[in-house]
Amino acid sequence: MSLTDEVVDFLLRGESPPADVRAKAVEHIVDGVAVMLAGSRTDCAQKLADYVGERGGSPSSTVIGFGFKSSASDAALVNGTSGHADDYDDTQLSTAPDRIYGLMTHPTVPVLAAALAIGEVTGCSGRELVEAFIVGFEVECKIAEAIKPDHYRRGFHSTGTIGAFGAFAASGRLLGLGELELRHALGIVASLTSGIRVNFGTMTKPLHAGMAASNGVTASMLAMRGFTADENALDGRWGFMEILGHGSDPELMVGRMGNPYALVYPGATFKMYPCGCLGQPSMDAMLEIVLEEDLKPEDVREIRLRAGPNILEPLRYSEPVTGLQAKFSLNFALASILLRRRAGLREYATEFVTRPEVVDVMRRVRTIHDAEIASMGVEKMRSILEVELVDGRVVRRTAEEYRGTPEKPFMGHEVDDKFMECASFKMDEGRAREVLGVIRGLEEVSDLGDLTGLLAGGG
Amino acid sequence: MSLTDEVVDFLLRGESPPADVRAKAVEHIVDGVAVMLAGSRTDCAQKLADYVGERGGSPSSTVIGFGFKSSASDAALVNGTSGHADDYDDTQLSTAPDRIYGLMTHPTVPVLAAALAIGEVTGCSGRELVEAFIVGFEVECKIAEAIKPDHYRRGFHSTGTIGAFGAFAASGRLLGLGELELRHALGIVASLTSGIRVNFGTMTKPLHAGMAASNGVTASMLAMRGFTADENALDGRWGFMEILGHGSDPELMVGRMGNPYALVYPGATFKMYPCGCLGQPSMDAMLEIVLEEDLKPEDVREIRLRAGPNILEPLRYSEPVTGLQAKFSLNFALASILLRRRAGLREYATEFVTRPEVVDVMRRVRTIHDAEIASMGVEKMRSILEVELVDGRVVRRTAEEYRGTPEKPFMGHEVDDKFMECASFKMDEGRAREVLGVIRGLEEVSDLGDLTGLLAGGG
Repeated sequence: MSLTDEVVDFLLRGESPPADVRAKAVEHIVDGVAVMLAGSRTDCAQKLADYVGERGGSPSSTVIGFGFKSSASDAALVNGTSGHADDYDDTQLSTAPDRIYGLMTHPTVPVLAAALAIGEVTGCSGRELVEAFIVGFEVECKIAEAIKPDHYRRGFHSTGTIGAFGAFAASGRLLGLGELELRHALGIVASLTSGIRVNFGTMTKPLHAGMAASNGVTASMLAMRGFTADENALDGRWGFMEILGHGSDPELMVGRMGNPYALVYPGATFKMYPCGCLGQPSMDAMLEIVLEEDLKPEDVREIRLRAGPNILEPLRYSEPVTGLQAKFSLNFALASILLRRRAGLREYATEFVTRPEVVDVMRRVRTIHDAEIASMGVEKMRSILEVELVDGRVVRRTAEEYRGTPEKPFMGHEVDDKFMECASFKMDEGRAREVLGVIRGLEEVSDLGDLTGLLAGGG
Repeated sequence: MSLTDEVVDFLLRGESPPADVRAKAVEHIVDGVAVMLAGSRTDCAQKLADYVGERGGSPSSTVIGFGFKSSASDAALVNGTSGHADDYDDTQLSTAPDRIYGLMTHPTVPVLAAALAIGEVTGCSGRELVEAFIVGFEVECKIAEAIKPDHYRRGFHSTGTIGAFGAFAASGRLLGLGELELRHALGIVASLTSGIRVNFGTMTKPLHAGMAASNGVTASMLAMRGFTADENALDGRWGFMEILGHGSDPELMVGRMGNPYALVYPGATFKMYPCGCLGQPSMDAMLEIVLEEDLKPEDVREIRLRAGPNILEPLRYSEPVTGLQAKFSLNFALASILLRRRAGLREYATEFVTRPEVVDVMRRVRTIHDAEIASMGVEKMRSILEVELVDGRVVRRTAEEYRGTPEKPFMGHEVDDKFMECASFKMDEGRAREVLGVIRGLEEVSDLGDLTGLLAGGG
């Protein structure tokens, strides 16, 4: 079987995934809608929504948080971009040492944005949405596992490129495409996928996730009309795997679609904090110390963070002056947790970052390059945190894991807490609880419009 | 200067190109509109236009030949796809032996489709359209010259990828973007460009040209709204040239933008026949023999074509049964010229290809693998044509060049004849002559709407 055969066969099987997979899918859908709602408040999403609004389109699908509907492809474009705008969405785990964690896809957003947009057009049930999400997530993760890691290392942004295959799969399932149409849709999407890492640190990075979602929608809708493409587009000479990945390891896909589902193994990590994953173990360690010792800012003389260059070089702002710089600052991350016992979207805002009391604590944070930690390897994000108190005691903690990883899985209430924080930018608490309830009971919803109707929000 | 600097500086210079460049641009615009009009009759363009029509959009730009307007990006999408649907558009010439002819871009269509769509929105003059077309053509061709040929050899379709930079440049010029906006637009387009060769031979190949046009429009319109991207996206680590091309030869761009203009050197070849360039020299040789000897089908006993595998292997159908197969058939090409003294869009149609008198002549064509010709190299498409007459004479001709190349340049009347043939699928002769007159006098047109209004046509 070719890799394309594997994907198409899997999509045609139509088996209902087991209950644990469906339950896991719902967690990721809660998280995905959460980051889309929050992301819709960003400049990036706002500018894109303005463009899409002016470009116009049949009002078929909800542009989340903006109070209008647009074509399915454009709704997917904006919602996908919103979902990645804060770097707050989930991250696919690796299954092999050369598939480096953090270099896989952010799997949920492209798939979910496409599925919501198409599902609203077809009037699907909540159960159908969950199943389309599961197959999209699966296709995306398996392709990302099988493609040679050179794909990302050389500079493609896998969420933009491979995310589009997830979006295609979810769209194709919801549209009920037959075998030939699925092959053509996959071929079309193989020619539309894009996204290069030169644009990291700009609005175009989240745009990659939006384009992935939109390209998946467009490819499936064109194929449904008989638009043609190569029927084995993942494979062979000039195929996607060869051109964009310099090849693949087929054994990571063949016979493995849904076996096990990537949603349960290896799974994807949630993010507790809206910043890159490098600092998250240190932040969780800081929170543990603050809570256990019940520390107030005035109790602390100095916070020392020892780590290798893998963490300290990218997180390079010692005294950030904007919310975006703060995402790359350990001084800010640790200060925020000491001051507020959290570091959420409201903290990663210029207004908070520049407050005198925040600056005061940031100046008490010292980062120290530690050769011994560096020599321990980079497959985990290791650091040692030392909090020196005014009473002279030093509380010390080694940080390696963080909440959201398999070692410290997110509890349901943490997903819900994050949802409520994210939703608060676009709706009141009552409405947010209602949305959360609908998603948690998604398999019982007969018409997806019951959910999307609640997500329109104000612009 | 970085390569991005070169492009942005060139776009900001705002010099008026010399008269010979402008005159050449008008020839290519005539040819480009011609192939868009003809291409709009294809299944491929029809399916795409159906999708775009259903997706909806502000009616700002004309979808050529379909009788409706759509958003600028969607009009560019359909018109760009129409323009490449017959493989009948121009081909950029090479400037170096390792930049193989036929592997460069088809430069006009992505640029022209974007410029027409944006120019209709901004209400530009004909002169402004010509100048925007010239800068777009220049940016596209210079990037295609400078990128390592591995870009195409490994499997990217340069008209899809690099064409988008031409579309961005024309759009950015017409929108009057400033330096920073141009840099951002270039960065956005660098992340949107795509198109892989696995899809050659399907509708998705022409879609690449449409996506290039559409991506250029979207990138410029987003950047105008302050959407950001990397400010040096062609260059450096993870930049476009490195990721998609494995590098570039900067000396082919630095100091060379508009110096000379690619439109005049090396220029681009027009196509006399709506099929790949491999067979065109043999077809022109056949036409010369037929005209000089005033041959009728009944005068000919056998047509022998000697050539190397570079021609005979791709053109592999000895008795094609569809118009699309006929594009890859020397038997058909030579038969059509003997029967009708032409091989145009009306001949490359299944109805004509399958007629008994065509089949009869096709069976009199014999293709012969010739090792001696093969040993002469592949930088030209060499063949020897022998027409054996019923009176026993054999007329022999060596074929290397074809009309449209620098050695046998298209005459103005040939461009006009091609335009009239292409336009005939969408309008009557009077209207077609009117459109041709407007394009030939484009620099005097005060509002582009005077042209686009004539191009709407019926659906």
